Amino acid sequence: MAYKENYPSRLLEDAVDAISTLPGVGRRSALRLALHLLKQPQENVHHFTSSIDRLRDEVMYCRECMMISDAELCSICSDRSRDRKTICVVESVRDVMSIENTGQFHGVYHVLGGIISPINGIGPSDLSISRLVDRIRESEDAASMEIILALSGDVEGETTSFYIYRQISGFGVKVSSLARGLGFGDDLEYADELTLGRSIVNRQVFRP
Amino acid sequence: MAYKENYPSRLLEDAVDAISTLPGVGRRSALRLALHLLKQPQENVHHFTSSIDRLRDEVMYCRECMMISDAELCSICSDRSRDRKTICVVESVRDVMSIENTGQFHGVYHVLGGIISPINGIGPSDLSISRLVDRIRESEDAASMEIILALSGDVEGETTSFYIYRQISGFGVKVSSLARGLGFGDDLEYADELTLGRSIVNRQVFRP
Repeated sequence: MAYKENYPSRLLEDAVDAISTLPGVGRRSALRLALHLLKQPQENVHHFTSSIDRLRDEVMYCRECMMISDAELCSICSDRSRDRKTICVVESVRDVMSIENTGQFHGVYHVLGGIISPINGIGPSDLSISRLVDRIRESEDAASMEIILALSGDVEGETTSFYIYRQISGFGVKVSSLARGLGFGDDLEYADELTLGRSIVNRQVFRP
Repeated sequence: MAYKENYPSRLLEDAVDAISTLPGVGRRSALRLALHLLKQPQENVHHFTSSIDRLRDEVMYCRECMMISDAELCSICSDRSRDRKTICVVESVRDVMSIENTGQFHGVYHVLGGIISPINGIGPSDLSISRLVDRIRESEDAASMEIILALSGDVEGETTSFYIYRQISGFGVKVSSLARGLGFGDDLEYADELTLGRSIVNRQVFRP
């Protein structure tokens, strides 16, 4: 056979190569997915790929909180009933969705877009921390604001919390962090809603 | 929030809907994959989707064996060193790749494209069985041919094998099926009775 791993077709091998770049998808699973797609009606496959292309090409980020959005201002930031004095700082879009699912939080968010991680080459300037500082600086009454640091309980999360705390503590804002109902090292994404909801309600003053 | 499951963006929800149609991918995994793709460089995402589109739009099937191919004749059928008198009948493209990986088979294949399954509404006419019959009929010396029925050992596989056997036995071809027995390294204690029984009935001369 002319191809490594006995691929009968260059097109199939290219698709398997591409699909196996997804996290958690090995080459065997990628082959299974490629052959599944090959069996689907052509218009279904085109819908599948175009919905991914459109997400990547057309998605917007809220100019206030950096959340994924279909408009310049996301649906949370444009909601007049939300408490704009309470900003919950999270690592990612998924964290916002998880916290929204608890129904326990009525403030607004700030999506960092990652976490400080020297090992992965991610520093403070790669995140939207300066934008958070601007949000606080631009507010009329910083002393009445509360910033909730809702980051993971691992070393990188703690490092990021501490870095942000140093950047914003001078403005006189109240800084809190999630109650440690979450086990250390637990990922926000995998926490059950009750635990996560309690963590928001019982948030504590940040003591570095 | 305006969207079910609190999706912050219609584009994101559409992509998650599409990705979660893949077998074995739930909505939570689909969200994780969508957000992963969102973080990748735009050209990588376009390469990902276009390789899938090209597979679906441009792939060909070998006119002899119905294997996925980049040409009218697949690389196995066009290989002069393969024994064209021995045809191994398999359910899918993956089975061809599995058998090729063993390096033990030097004949050619016939890919059915599925298996007879009344419960899934798949009948003989949905498979390439008549094309297999044609291949045997068109051969100059059917009596010297061997057809290996390499289908699964479950009810659907047995049904399909039996149906094909009835279609081709009149041509005087030799029909065989895969040896069933204990796998290499299998423990006798954990083998099911049917497999163990077959292993005893079909015992082979010991060649140390």
